[in-house]
Amino acid sequence: MAKVLTSRSENYSQWYNDLVIKADLAENSAVRGCMVIKPYGYAIWEKMQAVLDGKFKETGHQNAYFPLLIPKSFLSKEADHVEGFAKECAVVTHYRLMNDPNGKGVIVDPDARLEEELIIRPTSETIIWNTYKNWIQSYRDLPILINQWANVMRWEMRTRLFLRTAEFLWQEGHTAHATKEEALVETEQMINIYSDFAEGWMAVPVLKGTKTETERFAGALDTYCIEALMQDGKALQAGTSHFLGQNFAKAFDVKFTNKEGKEDYVWATSWGVSTRLMGALVMAHSDDQGLVLPPKLAPIQVVIVPIYRKEEELAKLAEVIDPIVAKLKAKGISVKFDDSDNRKPGWKFAEYELKGVPVRLAMGARDLENGTVELARRDTLSKETVAVEGVEDLIENLLEEIQNSIFQKALDFRTEKTTKVDSYDEFKDLLETKTGFFLAHWDGTAETEERIKNETKATIRCIPFDNEEEEGVCMVTGKPSKQRVVFAKAY
Amino acid sequence: MAKVLTSRSENYSQWYNDLVIKADLAENSAVRGCMVIKPYGYAIWEKMQAVLDGKFKETGHQNAYFPLLIPKSFLSKEADHVEGFAKECAVVTHYRLMNDPNGKGVIVDPDARLEEELIIRPTSETIIWNTYKNWIQSYRDLPILINQWANVMRWEMRTRLFLRTAEFLWQEGHTAHATKEEALVETEQMINIYSDFAEGWMAVPVLKGTKTETERFAGALDTYCIEALMQDGKALQAGTSHFLGQNFAKAFDVKFTNKEGKEDYVWATSWGVSTRLMGALVMAHSDDQGLVLPPKLAPIQVVIVPIYRKEEELAKLAEVIDPIVAKLKAKGISVKFDDSDNRKPGWKFAEYELKGVPVRLAMGARDLENGTVELARRDTLSKETVAVEGVEDLIENLLEEIQNSIFQKALDFRTEKTTKVDSYDEFKDLLETKTGFFLAHWDGTAETEERIKNETKATIRCIPFDNEEEEGVCMVTGKPSKQRVVFAKAY
Ligand SMILES: [Zn+2]
Ligand SMILES: [Zn+2]
Repeated sequence: MAKVLTSRSENYSQWYNDLVIKADLAENSAVRGCMVIKPYGYAIWEKMQAVLDGKFKETGHQNAYFPLLIPKSFLSKEADHVEGFAKECAVVTHYRLMNDPNGKGVIVDPDARLEEELIIRPTSETIIWNTYKNWIQSYRDLPILINQWANVMRWEMRTRLFLRTAEFLWQEGHTAHATKEEALVETEQMINIYSDFAEGWMAVPVLKGTKTETERFAGALDTYCIEALMQDGKALQAGTSHFLGQNFAKAFDVKFTNKEGKEDYVWATSWGVSTRLMGALVMAHSDDQGLVLPPKLAPIQVVIVPIYRKEEELAKLAEVIDPIVAKLKAKGISVKFDDSDNRKPGWKFAEYELKGVPVRLAMGARDLENGTVELARRDTLSKETVAVEGVEDLIENLLEEIQNSIFQKALDFRTEKTTKVDSYDEFKDLLETKTGFFLAHWDGTAETEERIKNETKATIRCIPFDNEEEEGVCMVTGKPSKQRVVFAKAY
Repeated sequence: MAKVLTSRSENYSQWYNDLVIKADLAENSAVRGCMVIKPYGYAIWEKMQAVLDGKFKETGHQNAYFPLLIPKSFLSKEADHVEGFAKECAVVTHYRLMNDPNGKGVIVDPDARLEEELIIRPTSETIIWNTYKNWIQSYRDLPILINQWANVMRWEMRTRLFLRTAEFLWQEGHTAHATKEEALVETEQMINIYSDFAEGWMAVPVLKGTKTETERFAGALDTYCIEALMQDGKALQAGTSHFLGQNFAKAFDVKFTNKEGKEDYVWATSWGVSTRLMGALVMAHSDDQGLVLPPKLAPIQVVIVPIYRKEEELAKLAEVIDPIVAKLKAKGISVKFDDSDNRKPGWKFAEYELKGVPVRLAMGARDLENGTVELARRDTLSKETVAVEGVEDLIENLLEEIQNSIFQKALDFRTEKTTKVDSYDEFKDLLETKTGFFLAHWDGTAETEERIKNETKATIRCIPFDNEEEEGVCMVTGKPSKQRVVFAKAY
C-alpha cells in the first residue's frame, strides 16, 4: 500500500494536517481560516453532539437559539469581556449590495451603512444576558438552564483545521441562578460532564482543574477546564466551564427578588466545547496508517470486505455475510458491507484503516469453506481467523475491549509523559528534550507565571481539583507553595 | 381564566404574534429582525429536525458543514442567482475592533479592512459548488448527496417571528449528479419528503407542484414547492426543492468525466425547509386559547395535573399517578407530571392549553375514590371521566386519533376554502370577500401573472403535480389553457 501520510516522527504537525484531509474529516475553504467539515468528519461530530446533548438534557438543560449578530456596544458592557473578545472579530457594517455601476459584479451599497455595527458572535454571554434581563424578575424564574448549539467566529491569524479556525461549531451553556452556591455546583457539574465524555467516549484521559487568573475566561471569576495530552506531548484544552459570578448580571442589570423579598443580582455560569474536540480525538489516538477511532464515536464500527473474483463468488459470500450484518445491526452496531466492485480489497483495507474503522472482517473462498472470517483490529493492527458462528458476540465484546484499550494506552502515555520537577534549571533543560505535563511548585503570582511563559513557552494548564497538598517552594522564586501545578506547552 | 390572546377574528396577525410570544416559542431580540428561539419553541424545532434528518439519511444523504461567510465575488458568478440573493444581505467589511481613542467603548479598526468583503450566507449554493469543484473529477465521485443544518441571513425590512426573519435556521440540501434524469428524480424525491413530513407529522395538508418561472429560485431551472393554507386563508410556502440543471456547475466550472470518458458539467439540486415551518405549524391549527400541537411534534404529549389541598393528598394521588407516568413513558409517550405547588390547577390548565399539550389528565380526591381520572383533549377542548385502569392504552390511541383529527380538520378547511373561478371579474370580486386557494385558467405568460399580481395581490402558488387536464381559457386574456393553476394571497 502506498504511504499516504507523513509519519508522526518525521513531522507531527504535517502528519496531523495530512490525516485530517486524507481521512475526509475537513478541509480549508475559500474563506481564510474557515473550514469545510466533510461528511465523515461531521458524522463523528454528530455522534459527539448526540452524547453531550443527552447529558445536558439529563441534567435539566434545554436548548434554545440566540442571534448570530451582537451589537458592538454590548461587548463593551463587561469590562474584562471586552478586553478578551472585542478585538479580532468579524464586523458587519452594511446590509446591502448593489450592481457595480462601473462594471461587472456587485459592490457594497454605501447608502446601506448600519447605524451601529454588528459583530458575529465570538461567544454569546452579552446577547444572552441582555435577553435574560427580560426573563427574570423573581427567584421563581430561576434557575435558567439553557444550552445553544451554534457557530461562532474569532478572527484568528494562524489557523489549523479543527484546532484553531476563524469559524467553529460549538455548544455554549448559559445558566442563571439565585445563589452563588448553586452556580458553583453547576460550574462543577458541567466540567464533570465534559470530563466523563472525554474519558468515556473519546477515550482521552483528561486532567480536571482550575485555570490560573491569567488564563481565565474574560469576565469569569473562575474557569474550570479539562486538559488532554496529545501524542507530541503538547497539552490541549478540551473544554471549559466558567463561574461568572454576578459580572454579567451587573453589566446587563439583571436583578431578581429572592425568597426573602430582597433584590439581588443573578449568578451566572457558562460552559462550552467545540469542534476542537475533533482535533483532540484525532491527535490522541491516531497512527501513521491513519485514524484510530474509539468505537463509541466511530461512524462505522465494523466494515466487512468480501474477497472474490466473479459475481457468483460474491453472491455466495453475501449469503454468509448478510446474516452477520443483520445480527450486528440488531445489537446496535453500525456495520458497512463494502461489496463495491470498483476497488480491490487491498485498496479497501488501506481506506478503512485510514478512516479508523475499529474492526474489519474479510472473507474469501477459503473462509467460506471453513466457516471462518478474518478479523482485524484497527488499534493494534492485529489479525486473527475466527469462526463465523458467534462472531457477532465476539465483536460486541471486542468493541468494548478496544474502547478500553485505547483509553488505557493514552493513559499510560500520559503517565509516562508526566514529570515532577523541582528546580527551574531542570525544568528549562527538560523542556528542551522532553514534552508532556510537568508538575512543579509555583508561588501563585501572575508575574512568575508570565516569566515562565516568556522564558520557556510553557503555561500553567491547570491546578488539578484532586491535587495532593505538598509543602514546597516555587521553582522560580523560592517562595513557599502548598501544591504542584501542571505546566506544559499547549495547542 | 384571563384571556391572554387577541382573538383570531379580532386581529389574526396580532393573535399570531401574541401566541408566539405568550406560548414561549420565540421573541424579538435586540438585533433588528433577528429572533430568540426560546426553549419551548426550540424543542418543537428539534423534533422537526430529528424527523427530517432521519428521512434525509434514509435516502442516502449525509450532513456536512460549509462556511458561514461567502466571498462577495462568488455571488456574481451565477447570473440569476446574483439578482435574487446579492441584494439585501449582511456584509462583513472589517475583522477587528479597537478601543475608542476618544472615549469609552470600542470602534471598528479602520486598518482592519478586508480586501474582499464577505457576505453572511443567504443560501450556500455558491460556496458549496466552489467546494464541489475539488471533489468531483469522475462519475465515480457522483452522486454527492449532502445536507447542512445551518443559520442563514437575508436582510428583510419587514420581519415577523418565524415567518420572515433576518436570521433563520434551516437545512439546505445540495446534491451533484451525473445525469439530468437523476437530478430530476432527486428534486422530486425531496419535495415528496417535505410533503410527507408536512402532512404526516405537522398535520398540515399541502399542495405539491411546480412554481412558475417568475416564482422560481434564483438560478434554478425548476422549483417544486409545497403550499399550505393558513386559517386566515392565506397561503404559506412551506418547502422548496430546486432542479438547478448545470447552472452552478457552469458558473463554478465543475466538470466530470462520464462512463464513456467524455467531459460534461455536473447536474445539481438544492432543497430546504426552515424555521418558517414553525410559523406554519402555529397558524394552521391553533385557536383563541393557544397552541394546538399535533401529538407527533408536541414536546409534552400528556400533562398530568393533581388537584389537592394538603401535602398528604398529593402523596396519595402520586401513588396512582406515578404508575400512569411510568406506563406512558414505557410506550414512548412524553409525559409531564406537574406537581409544582406554587401554581393553582386553574392556572396550570390555562398554561398547558396555551402551550398546546394534546392531552391533559387531572385527578382529585373523588377520582381517587372512584379509580377515575379526568381526560381533556386540547384540539376539541372536550373532557370526559375515564377509568385509571387501562388509561395508558386509551391515551396511546387517542394521540393517534388527535393527530389524524387535526389533519382532517385542516384538510376540510382547505377544501372549503378552495374555489374554482372562471372569470377575472368573479376572481377580483371573490378576493375582496373570500380567501383561500383559487383554481383558475391562466395563459402561461409572465405578463398575465404579473398583471394579476399587481391588480389583486394574488400570486400563482403552484401548478399542482397531479393536476387534471381541463380545456379552458385564461380568465384574463382568453387565450387557451390546458389546466387550472392555484392562486392565493400568500405570506
Ligand atoms: Zn486546565
Ligand atoms: Zn407551490
